[in-house]
Amino acid sequence: MSEPLFRRLTLLGLGLIGSSLARVARERGDIAAELVAHDSDPAVLRRVAELGIADRIEADAARAVADADGVVLCAPVGAFASLAQTIAPALAPGAILSDVGSTKQSVIRDVGPLLPKGVEFVPAHPLAGTEFSGPDAGLATLFQGRWCLLTPLPGSDPDAVEKIAELWRRCGSMVEAMEPAQHDRTVAIISHLPHLIAFTICGTADDLAGETQQHVLDFAASGFRDFTRIAASDPVMWRDVFLNNREALLEMLARFMEDAQAMARAVRWGDAEYIENSVKRGRAIRRRLIEAKQA
Amino acid sequence: MSEPLFRRLTLLGLGLIGSSLARVARERGDIAAELVAHDSDPAVLRRVAELGIADRIEADAARAVADADGVVLCAPVGAFASLAQTIAPALAPGAILSDVGSTKQSVIRDVGPLLPKGVEFVPAHPLAGTEFSGPDAGLATLFQGRWCLLTPLPGSDPDAVEKIAELWRRCGSMVEAMEPAQHDRTVAIISHLPHLIAFTICGTADDLAGETQQHVLDFAASGFRDFTRIAASDPVMWRDVFLNNREALLEMLARFMEDAQAMARAVRWGDAEYIENSVKRGRAIRRRLIEAKQA
Repeated sequence: MSEPLFRRLTLLGLGLIGSSLARVARERGDIAAELVAHDSDPAVLRRVAELGIADRIEADAARAVADADGVVLCAPVGAFASLAQTIAPALAPGAILSDVGSTKQSVIRDVGPLLPKGVEFVPAHPLAGTEFSGPDAGLATLFQGRWCLLTPLPGSDPDAVEKIAELWRRCGSMVEAMEPAQHDRTVAIISHLPHLIAFTICGTADDLAGETQQHVLDFAASGFRDFTRIAASDPVMWRDVFLNNREALLEMLARFMEDAQAMARAVRWGDAEYIENSVKRGRAIRRRLIEAKQA
Repeated sequence: MSEPLFRRLTLLGLGLIGSSLARVARERGDIAAELVAHDSDPAVLRRVAELGIADRIEADAARAVADADGVVLCAPVGAFASLAQTIAPALAPGAILSDVGSTKQSVIRDVGPLLPKGVEFVPAHPLAGTEFSGPDAGLATLFQGRWCLLTPLPGSDPDAVEKIAELWRRCGSMVEAMEPAQHDRTVAIISHLPHLIAFTICGTADDLAGETQQHVLDFAASGFRDFTRIAASDPVMWRDVFLNNREALLEMLARFMEDAQAMARAVRWGDAEYIENSVKRGRAIRRRLIEAKQA
């Protein structure tokens, strides 16, 4: 077994992603010699202790990061600014701070300026998840075969970036670095917009059911079922994601609405070829994802 | 075992739904004493013979329905009018004609007027499916625990309606009757619109990838993955569904677009409460579907 990557790794936030990371660290042994867990919710911390997926639980965030050489923010991105403010004075010189937030420009804006000199900041985003949340939802296999996107800052220490990349490789992920703005646009289309649409259509259907007093939802066929799966995700996490990736999300939604209007026009005017080609395109994309083992 | 429901049951179209129905009939034995299969594609018919899921294959549609006491149209709904024209003169007096089409007003419009007197027409729509198509994709378990919606006509023979209801109950489905217009609006929101959205967003993402020369799709995260699954469905079937449920689909799309614009406005103006409530609503709907065992 390789040397543990971190002497003391602190996870702040033990929901789906944080508790999955804790489980991988526990299973492998080569990620952290000591794993410290903090969560703002005492019930979550108690559950982490019961599950035995951390060496130590710590209700005080500043105390949790003391003397850690690795710290990962795993809370909803809206909580990052105040969390960073709390822990900044307690971060050890030479410590690497990373995160798992779904938006990267906002994290760099909110967290970057608060960090003391000597602390290395390497923002990261594992593209993994399920519709479940909380410490019981975590899975040691969650990151296997999934991408983890890093958005290092200009002037980031290459050793620190490599250490975070290695952390995710040991979780079974493929790692790629990109610009923060490119990251935010990419995830806006492949993840944030699909979630926004899924939340919206559930409401649209529910309104219709209420209006007509008909049992619309009782008959949920295959299409709608999949949408509700996505829509079952954590409300606070997604609220924060939408508010912190506002520009990219609104751009992608506008593009999608234009395309949906074009499809509506094809349906109205009976443009069979346009419709058939749209469906064929969806199929081709699906095939590409299957070949890339991301489906 | 009960008496077979039909002496000779003919399936016209052996794709996902038709071949699933054939498999159930084959497994149970109490659905049809003899099962005849017709498909306009000779390759499909050859495959049906290889799979051994019909007693007889018949390349001529009129010959396939001769002397059958039950006939089920399982082709894409756009093919129903010409198919009905072909088989109408050959239908036996007293035969029951049904279908599995996803749109019901169009089927009643296209098929109803062509039928000879003495043939009973009972439109039906099993709410079941996968993203796969063709005779190899069929599953004997496809309809188990799923709804089948019947839209009997005014003056339909109650015995014929009951026989088709019993057919679907023997397939493991729950059966409910409703007005054709109500059916079309219900499936527009729970099935057709989700598919239209899934096809559209795949194109939106693909356009963006092409425009920016970035590997957007390589990173397909969980949300987008589920959309591509829906979008992998059969192009001809869905083209026909969209064109034959035009009014209801356009109404539901318009409702959805209004709601998506409201969500966009909440994102733009930072209305955290609106966003959080939308996500919570999606969760509640998901919970209801799980309780109703439709998730």
